[in-house]
Amino acid sequence: MRTSPDCLPCFLRQIAHAARLATADPDRQKLILERAAALLPAFDLSRSPPENSVALYRLVAELADCPDPFANLKQSSNAAMHALRPRLLQSIRAAADPLLAAMKFAAAGNIIDYGSQQDFDLEQTLAACLARDFAIDDATKLSAAIDRLGPADTVLYLGDNCGELVMDGILIEMLAGRGLRVVLALKEYPIINDATVVDAQKLGLDRFCAVISNGTGCPGTPLASCSTLFQREFRRASLIISKGQGNFETLSEAAGPLFFLLAVKCSVVGQHLTGYAERQQPLPACGEMALVRGRFFP
Amino acid sequence: MRTSPDCLPCFLRQIAHAARLATADPDRQKLILERAAALLPAFDLSRSPPENSVALYRLVAELADCPDPFANLKQSSNAAMHALRPRLLQSIRAAADPLLAAMKFAAAGNIIDYGSQQDFDLEQTLAACLARDFAIDDATKLSAAIDRLGPADTVLYLGDNCGELVMDGILIEMLAGRGLRVVLALKEYPIINDATVVDAQKLGLDRFCAVISNGTGCPGTPLASCSTLFQREFRRASLIISKGQGNFETLSEAAGPLFFLLAVKCSVVGQHLTGYAERQQPLPACGEMALVRGRFFP
Repeated sequence: MRTSPDCLPCFLRQIAHAARLATADPDRQKLILERAAALLPAFDLSRSPPENSVALYRLVAELADCPDPFANLKQSSNAAMHALRPRLLQSIRAAADPLLAAMKFAAAGNIIDYGSQQDFDLEQTLAACLARDFAIDDATKLSAAIDRLGPADTVLYLGDNCGELVMDGILIEMLAGRGLRVVLALKEYPIINDATVVDAQKLGLDRFCAVISNGTGCPGTPLASCSTLFQREFRRASLIISKGQGNFETLSEAAGPLFFLLAVKCSVVGQHLTGYAERQQPLPACGEMALVRGRFFP
Repeated sequence: MRTSPDCLPCFLRQIAHAARLATADPDRQKLILERAAALLPAFDLSRSPPENSVALYRLVAELADCPDPFANLKQSSNAAMHALRPRLLQSIRAAADPLLAAMKFAAAGNIIDYGSQQDFDLEQTLAACLARDFAIDDATKLSAAIDRLGPADTVLYLGDNCGELVMDGILIEMLAGRGLRVVLALKEYPIINDATVVDAQKLGLDRFCAVISNGTGCPGTPLASCSTLFQREFRRASLIISKGQGNFETLSEAAGPLFFLLAVKCSVVGQHLTGYAERQQPLPACGEMALVRGRFFP
């Protein structure tokens, strides 16, 4: 999807947040914001928002001399979610449809991404998410697609943020338990709170799947810029589960056996998703969960 | 108060809104946002946010060839609030302390400013506001200051937005009913949804007070740029009631017999207000009402 003019103010708001994490010096924060604002007019709005955002986060890293401003947040969200893992597993096993429950927790984890900025009752939010329906619900289609897979098939799982990576891991473990080959792709370089290969290794996810990077430091999956290795896995995958907004924004027009599993976090994506899924009802409000089969699913 | 770096993204968000009102052409909206972003680095953060915002709104007016993008919104908010006036008067007359009730409605009207962007149950909001306390409450001090005034005294009332101007009018009518000379100052040129002299005249407010402009098209009261006439009224006033965030942002450090009556609409102002009022409790959340005696009240 393209960058909307409405993304420009939002970029700057996010950069203000990143700048505060990256440096405590108000003058430096101000400089970052000013320089970020000066970059906006040059943005190519035909590119996706995550692709355009890369230059802004690079600016924060350089001007604050801080290559990974979100490092602490990422670590604490991984730890908090990992501590909840036994109880998540318990809920999933007790559910009428454990695979659906795991999908919902994975989407719920994407909502909890918000938590990094606010006080948040993790358990309560997760319980509420499990009780909620997907605003766009292709869960039956995804379950059927999984059921059709055999041992020769590969599932490519595109991860998003730290924290929710724990829930991604549970879903991946269930897929691996069916004898499928699963490849988890994360980011090559730190960007916002996106998970990298090291995060997955620390959480032990490499016990159930191959963990690779997509070769970029973009908060999404800009196919043309991704590594050859990643592109090969993308082409050979029988099923691709794409987590989060950034991956949807960069892959909504990509050909492939894609399902998008995400929490809608802004009205621009909500609107695009409504049209994308040819949905008549009003677009999902921010915080709603969506599971959408890709328009170019073969 | 100074402009915070956090104001920069917010400026751009507000300009996106103004651009949508000013022109339906997406290319023009995009151009406006890009040009607005390019202006941000040159802003002098030692000036107040309303002063810095003027150049941005001028840009919208020029690039969209639309001198008053908020004209329709202003008219409809004036009409909606005017229709409620009889019921507001009834509530005020029935209140234990009618003057306090009028102050609360005036602050509540400042909250309802939000209404221009969303669905809003006017009556319910007003009823809820009347039942709520001021987050910072100098109402007793303001009532006492009013009680001390005599016929030789002038009250200068600094208006803010259309819509709430109806509530301002009720409070002004009560002050005039005490035999006080009241001067209502509004904006010389259209800026955002701020009221101008014509708005006050159309609502018949000139029956109870002199209506003047402050000589600017700034969404606040930047004293040094105001007209000589306005500055004279500012100096001679025995009491100044300043409505809304914009007037607080521009006048928080001004010497004068000031009371600030406002709804807090952003965390930057909330934070400044907390320090300003030497308040120990956490800053008022967005949407909370404050009535604060000026720090330099003689």
